[in-house]
Amino acid sequence: MTEQDVKAALRAQRIETPSWAYGNSGTRFKVFAQQGVPRDPFEKLADAAQVHRFTGVAPSVSLHIPWDKVEDYTRLAEHARAAGVSVGAINSNVFQDDDYMLGSVTHPDPRVRRKATDHLLECVDVMDATGSRDLKLWFSDGTNYPGQDDIRARQDRLAEALAEVYARLTGDQRIILEYKLFEPAFYTTDVPDWGTAYAHCLKLGERAKVVVDTGHHAPGTNIEFIVAFLLREGKLGAFDFNSRFYADDDLMVGAADPFQLFRIMHEVVRGGGLDDAAEVAFMLDQCHNIEPKIPGQIRSVMNVQEATAKALLVDKDALAAAQSAGDVLGANAVLMDAYNTDVRPLLAELRTETGLAPDPMAAYAASGYAERIRAERVGGNQAGWGA
Amino acid sequence: MTEQDVKAALRAQRIETPSWAYGNSGTRFKVFAQQGVPRDPFEKLADAAQVHRFTGVAPSVSLHIPWDKVEDYTRLAEHARAAGVSVGAINSNVFQDDDYMLGSVTHPDPRVRRKATDHLLECVDVMDATGSRDLKLWFSDGTNYPGQDDIRARQDRLAEALAEVYARLTGDQRIILEYKLFEPAFYTTDVPDWGTAYAHCLKLGERAKVVVDTGHHAPGTNIEFIVAFLLREGKLGAFDFNSRFYADDDLMVGAADPFQLFRIMHEVVRGGGLDDAAEVAFMLDQCHNIEPKIPGQIRSVMNVQEATAKALLVDKDALAAAQSAGDVLGANAVLMDAYNTDVRPLLAELRTETGLAPDPMAAYAASGYAERIRAERVGGNQAGWGA
Amino acid sequence: MTEQDVKAALRAQRIETPSWAYGNSGTRFKVFAQQGVPRDPFEKLADAAQVHRFTGVAPSVSLHIPWDKVEDYTRLAEHARAAGVSVGAINSNVFQDDDYMLGSVTHPDPRVRRKATDHLLECVDVMDATGSRDLKLWFSDGTNYPGQDDIRARQDRLAEALAEVYARLTGDQRIILEYKLFEPAFYTTDVPDWGTAYAHCLKLGERAKVVVDTGHHAPGTNIEFIVAFLLREGKLGAFDFNSRFYADDDLMVGAADPFQLFRIMHEVVRGGGLDDAAEVAFMLDQCHNIEPKIPGQIRSVMNVQEATAKALLVDKDALAAAQSAGDVLGANAVLMDAYNTDVRPLLAELRTETGLAPDPMAAYAASGYAERIRAERVGGNQAGWGA
Amino acid sequence: MTEQDVKAALRAQRIETPSWAYGNSGTRFKVFAQQGVPRDPFEKLADAAQVHRFTGVAPSVSLHIPWDKVEDYTRLAEHARAAGVSVGAINSNVFQDDDYMLGSVTHPDPRVRRKATDHLLECVDVMDATGSRDLKLWFSDGTNYPGQDDIRARQDRLAEALAEVYARLTGDQRIILEYKLFEPAFYTTDVPDWGTAYAHCLKLGERAKVVVDTGHHAPGTNIEFIVAFLLREGKLGAFDFNSRFYADDDLMVGAADPFQLFRIMHEVVRGGGLDDAAEVAFMLDQCHNIEPKIPGQIRSVMNVQEATAKALLVDKDALAAAQSAGDVLGANAVLMDAYNTDVRPLLAELRTETGLAPDPMAAYAASGYAERIRAERVGGNQAGWGA
Repeated sequence: MTEQDVKAALRAQRIETPSWAYGNSGTRFKVFAQQGVPRDPFEKLADAAQVHRFTGVAPSVSLHIPWDKVEDYTRLAEHARAAGVSVGAINSNVFQDDDYMLGSVTHPDPRVRRKATDHLLECVDVMDATGSRDLKLWFSDGTNYPGQDDIRARQDRLAEALAEVYARLTGDQRIILEYKLFEPAFYTTDVPDWGTAYAHCLKLGERAKVVVDTGHHAPGTNIEFIVAFLLREGKLGAFDFNSRFYADDDLMVGAADPFQLFRIMHEVVRGGGLDDAAEVAFMLDQCHNIEPKIPGQIRSVMNVQEATAKALLVDKDALAAAQSAGDVLGANAVLMDAYNTDVRPLLAELRTETGLAPDPMAAYAASGYAERIRAERVGGNQAGWGA
Repeated sequence: MTEQDVKAALRAQRIETPSWAYGNSGTRFKVFAQQGVPRDPFEKLADAAQVHRFTGVAPSVSLHIPWDKVEDYTRLAEHARAAGVSVGAINSNVFQDDDYMLGSVTHPDPRVRRKATDHLLECVDVMDATGSRDLKLWFSDGTNYPGQDDIRARQDRLAEALAEVYARLTGDQRIILEYKLFEPAFYTTDVPDWGTAYAHCLKLGERAKVVVDTGHHAPGTNIEFIVAFLLREGKLGAFDFNSRFYADDDLMVGAADPFQLFRIMHEVVRGGGLDDAAEVAFMLDQCHNIEPKIPGQIRSVMNVQEATAKALLVDKDALAAAQSAGDVLGANAVLMDAYNTDVRPLLAELRTETGLAPDPMAAYAASGYAERIRAERVGGNQAGWGA
Repeated sequence: MTEQDVKAALRAQRIETPSWAYGNSGTRFKVFAQQGVPRDPFEKLADAAQVHRFTGVAPSVSLHIPWDKVEDYTRLAEHARAAGVSVGAINSNVFQDDDYMLGSVTHPDPRVRRKATDHLLECVDVMDATGSRDLKLWFSDGTNYPGQDDIRARQDRLAEALAEVYARLTGDQRIILEYKLFEPAFYTTDVPDWGTAYAHCLKLGERAKVVVDTGHHAPGTNIEFIVAFLLREGKLGAFDFNSRFYADDDLMVGAADPFQLFRIMHEVVRGGGLDDAAEVAFMLDQCHNIEPKIPGQIRSVMNVQEATAKALLVDKDALAAAQSAGDVLGANAVLMDAYNTDVRPLLAELRTETGLAPDPMAAYAASGYAERIRAERVGGNQAGWGA
Repeated sequence: MTEQDVKAALRAQRIETPSWAYGNSGTRFKVFAQQGVPRDPFEKLADAAQVHRFTGVAPSVSLHIPWDKVEDYTRLAEHARAAGVSVGAINSNVFQDDDYMLGSVTHPDPRVRRKATDHLLECVDVMDATGSRDLKLWFSDGTNYPGQDDIRARQDRLAEALAEVYARLTGDQRIILEYKLFEPAFYTTDVPDWGTAYAHCLKLGERAKVVVDTGHHAPGTNIEFIVAFLLREGKLGAFDFNSRFYADDDLMVGAADPFQLFRIMHEVVRGGGLDDAAEVAFMLDQCHNIEPKIPGQIRSVMNVQEATAKALLVDKDALAAAQSAGDVLGANAVLMDAYNTDVRPLLAELRTETGLAPDPMAAYAASGYAERIRAERVGGNQAGWGA
């Protein structure tokens, strides 16, 4: 790939940021409030627009319903556009109502299942209003104790709800189904791994695809293998990027294992995942518990860009030659050569070429935006998990 | 061991329940409120007294400061006594104040460290007032990102705070120091493993010992080895019992891996940990997120009793003979023979002999207590994590 | 289920033992030789026949080609029948030839792929000769270093080889495809998880099913969920039973986590997996590195029987009632009640009823067989991994 | 640190290679033989000398007794010196004799313990003859099944053997004690974690220190924390470098998680571990199962150098300032800035300045050494695990 091709690919890249990253978040032990945090969806979109303003590659924002519930979604979408961004994926939330203590669409009680499915259908209404393509489904459903519920019956209930929602989609709308090993359920989770999500999506049809959240795997799982496999099957719908040392830590993507992120992006490039036709959505899903929110998002976007740049720099011909020759060290060296390259100058150059400041972190810090929102956003209820 | 000796040991066993288990709890995603939950420390003690009433082996209750903060601790201790229980270990809490976002006793800012250490000293005051022997220290201190703080300097600060608090102890008071792999910190934790806790306790002196929380280890850790090792060193101070499938799930002890609990109790018996002289405190530390609180505690106490009964039933002579003969299958069979024994009849008999109902779960259910508190405890703020 | 039904189900159960369990095995550090170990496939079958003689439920033996390569498989099958057992699944081996250093059916070199696929086809010939129904495929294929080979291309090669072998099957023959997280490959494994095996089997057709080896998962994986899911999909082909504390330890099934084994058997019973129509093969796959082989197998068969008996004893109606009522503790208690039951008397009774000694371990020990083979099998090369 | 200081530190760095890395190795499934592999300790030393010749920082070689057993160790040491290297640490081996099936120094049988301890003492004799400073102890001792042996008694036996060997040391000789989570033992390991090794070393005295093998931890363990902690305690004796994705994979150091290696080296630099006075030995302990041996060692040495260079480049003042200001993102950015730097040009320059070729891999490939040994080393028995 020529440097021009690399730059073109980087220029075309789009990374979606999530509205909830701009609100307060924390662990079960404590949510630490930060100054200047948004108090409603409009302020969240304003903050997201800053990330796009300084990086140039984050033009859309995922919403979370009901955290981002508003009277008039058309107005919200217009507000976003005015700020320079658009509404991206709609995330359903069927885990924060008291009714969902034992599950949502897999709950033993049909009344609760109906309520949960209705919420998912309502999210499609929001998509219609905002023009969003993707309904992102994450179910916290599961059990805490052996015997608590019937594992198999819960799959039946899940399949039924998914089918109803899938039938409701129109146009190019998609269901993108997320899996997660555990948390908040501690014995079984109803969609615990990519295999389960894949099997359900297969039955739903072509517009159902799998979401890979990079923090949702068992220790030792080779995530790039899953990415390569799903791309080969045409079933990779989206990424929820973040990083982790232990469980679903939701740290900034690339902060814990930048080499893993590079390997993932290498498989994305290898499998054609950057092409528009692949319809792979690249999204962040993070919690900035102790670091400032907007800079946390900017840094994360930059980390994805750097990993992508390195993946694009891999000498494909040399790699293929070494691989087919069975040259273990040679093939590994080709990959490592790209990884060890310092791509920050290339990205700075690219930004300058497109009219951006070369260092988005410094430019944001110098912009005075942080000081302004700290001063202005006093009073009211800060957004946060559950807000 | 004769059946009489087994029964005598079971009769002498004491399991402490934690005040916070009676309040609401949850995950970062949601705390589901339950009906009848206590609204203050006095109601928590009343609930704990029910667990003792039906099991006969849970006569003390751990407090958590400031969750259980009251004006007059002498009065609280008297209230406990009147309800039939006593105040057990005092748990400090230096993780729920906004000041502690980046640490408490290991915080880079000396002002925050001073505040945190002062809280620990205040907990010793509470111990003086309540007659508690143990100050249980768990520090959520750590970092989320590489480079965020200096790992080594944090150890220096930790050592300094521990030394100051240790110097404040009088009589038979002890520091019992808990370790935890991760959460809420996601990159480093300042006391992440038993080795760290052990090294600090060694420097503090004889009245500083290690707490083994059964949910605080990396996957694959052999907990009974740690128990055996600490008992050999005279440094096992206490257990925080709970169980887990994934991370620090805080499920009912014995619910996830009853065989592991048995192996742990086998090492306790082997190492003399049931003897008074060993001063090992057996405590529960659980969160009943979705199950009712008091029955959850009763079941947990029974699970510890059953594991202990099985451990006491191990044929020590046969085991030693097979072990020294290098008879792998024979030695394993001796252990499994005890584990496979159904000890519920023995425990029912023991209860009957001591004037208790043979089935504590059924007896509690029949007592009407649950209905009463659901009716009476309306209004007010339910206790919970942070309450 | 009445006691008679439970007994009938236990009487009908069949557990296959593997020929390689009777030979020497070890770790990469050392294979410790044991006395009396078989020196050829005929002696292995003789040992396997002892396991059946004393347990009554182990009438077939898995073979491993080329470890069990003989001139005349018809004669081998007759020899087995004469000893009282039959030939079960045929296990291919494409990992112990120098050609397979970088893979077998996924190797970058088409010559090596051809050789590997030819071996698989040869295994079907052996099945034709022995009357075996199942071709068990485990591929050690993978890579050790990032970049070493193309993850996606290896899937293409795998799919091609599988399709060729599947086309060769006749009658009721099946491919049963095993997955494994890692080892001997340390970066990628070409069939690392159930999802990958499932996706390939789906494309092959109805006679391709997944093998669940209980030791082949990432830490924290909920195996019984996978079992329930695959049964629901009609894609559970077989179990390779063993147990583990860490990686693929290949210890005796039920030795590390008997509660997990019970939960797995509970899902098997729940999902109809004991029925003949389900065609689920129950096989052992273990390495008795330090314990004697035949008693190790007898103990393992008994462990599976005990877990099955407990699973059959679960009060299904009470469980369903508690589950649909959302009674978390009640439902869990129904399951635990079965688990806590001591089923050894029931199984002893069952054995006596069918003319067996009540205690297979003691009966084998008293039989003198161990002494006889130690005396007779002197000289020659002991069978072992690679023998 | 000025660039001159960085270069001086890199020039002073010493990385020891292990004799066994030059022989064949593999997994329990298969050892793949490579051409040109050494057939005796002398040829291993010749190969090790090549690694030093092209990197300039690998002047010593660890031996493994009895794998490297020779008649005359003085002659072996002279041979090493003539080839341009010296004999480094002596590794004992008490795991490959049939007597050690159930343990060595912790075996229930005193005869086996005596034999094992005598071997350790013999290793000190070898140290006397070769001038080695370090006796590296790794015990594979442990158990496979619960109940198999007495965990606590094994600690007593271990302590006794260690004390006897420690008493035999003279001059500046040291015991360096390695820990390992599991393998080859699968239930308990007698020295499973750093805490156990630390506690034993503490009792032995000042010349007993802990070895950190980077592949010997539970999933999720923060290795750099252990490094920082042991350096603070003055108890870090040595590194056994390698890398892993799953268990003790023994891949090339830096191949699986180069960022982790950098974080480890950052703590080494921070804690003074590069200073001679710290007496920290930097050793490789790897198995090149599928890649060529000598290039595998050269690449590994270079990986350690690159991580060290990056660690030296960390702007300590900026880091300290950001840390004490509680600037989470700022402090992390200082660290990442060093990590993201491409240090290969700096190292190439350094090599040129010291008379080496800038690219050791290319220089070795061009040297013809590989072709020569492939041609010459025909016949005889190749060295390997157990050879």
